[in-house]
Amino acid sequence: MSDKAAEVSEVVNAFSDCWNRHDMPAFAALFAEDAQFINPKGEWWRGREAIRQAHECTHASLFRHSCLSFTRTLVRFPADGLALARSEWVLEGQVSPEGAPLAPRTGLLLNVLVRGDEGWRIVESQNTGIAGGVSSRSS
Amino acid sequence: MSDKAAEVSEVVNAFSDCWNRHDMPAFAALFAEDAQFINPKGEWWRGREAIRQAHECTHASLFRHSCLSFTRTLVRFPADGLALARSEWVLEGQVSPEGAPLAPRTGLLLNVLVRGDEGWRIVESQNTGIAGGVSSRSS
Repeated sequence: MSDKAAEVSEVVNAFSDCWNRHDMPAFAALFAEDAQFINPKGEWWRGREAIRQAHECTHASLFRHSCLSFTRTLVRFPADGLALARSEWVLEGQVSPEGAPLAPRTGLLLNVLVRGDEGWRIVESQNTGIAGGVSSRSS
Repeated sequence: MSDKAAEVSEVVNAFSDCWNRHDMPAFAALFAEDAQFINPKGEWWRGREAIRQAHECTHASLFRHSCLSFTRTLVRFPADGLALARSEWVLEGQVSPEGAPLAPRTGLLLNVLVRGDEGWRIVESQNTGIAGGVSSRSS
């Protein structure tokens, strides 16, 4: 693995690590200050602080015991200083607003990372749930 | 509008124009050869040709009379030669597999564009439906 691939993988792995520790300040620190985030419901957060606040809220409720696993991550570098990391994920341990356990969900997360003075930071995250839990692939 | 903003807007506008003309060769030509595409169901297509084939199929059936409108597009340039274009969309005129009309749907589309020798091309598209048809925004 190249140095830059290892650096990007480190950020992507930290995404799930911070999620699973429910450490939202550390989670938010992975993002650029003006990053944007779309969750699988089409909710849109703008800026690192909005991303932190939204996740603090869900990790105090629906996601407080949840575990996010990236089953595979593919990283591409289509331009200098730019990385596209797509991760297939499984989310287990989510509960309903009433606290009832919910079935695991799967999805596809795209993280767009840009290398700046402080290393690689996420500038965009967009998440899409997989309908029926199975993704089709052309290859 | 700067030159590069106008160039990127032209590609984004062509996305919906080609969709609404159901001209999938022209649609596919907006993408880089190794582009990837995630639709709102979490289906994943890799490569311009796979993107064309998948859309040829849906535009011969579910989407054959559909009309895609971008109600707003925000473009950012977080690195040299890189553009992130997020479009809010409404899709009208979709039909069920049995041909019955379906209600309009809304969503958020992220196009990642890179400037190469042939101008701006889409290297990643990821699409997320808006649950309940209304997106929340932090700002």
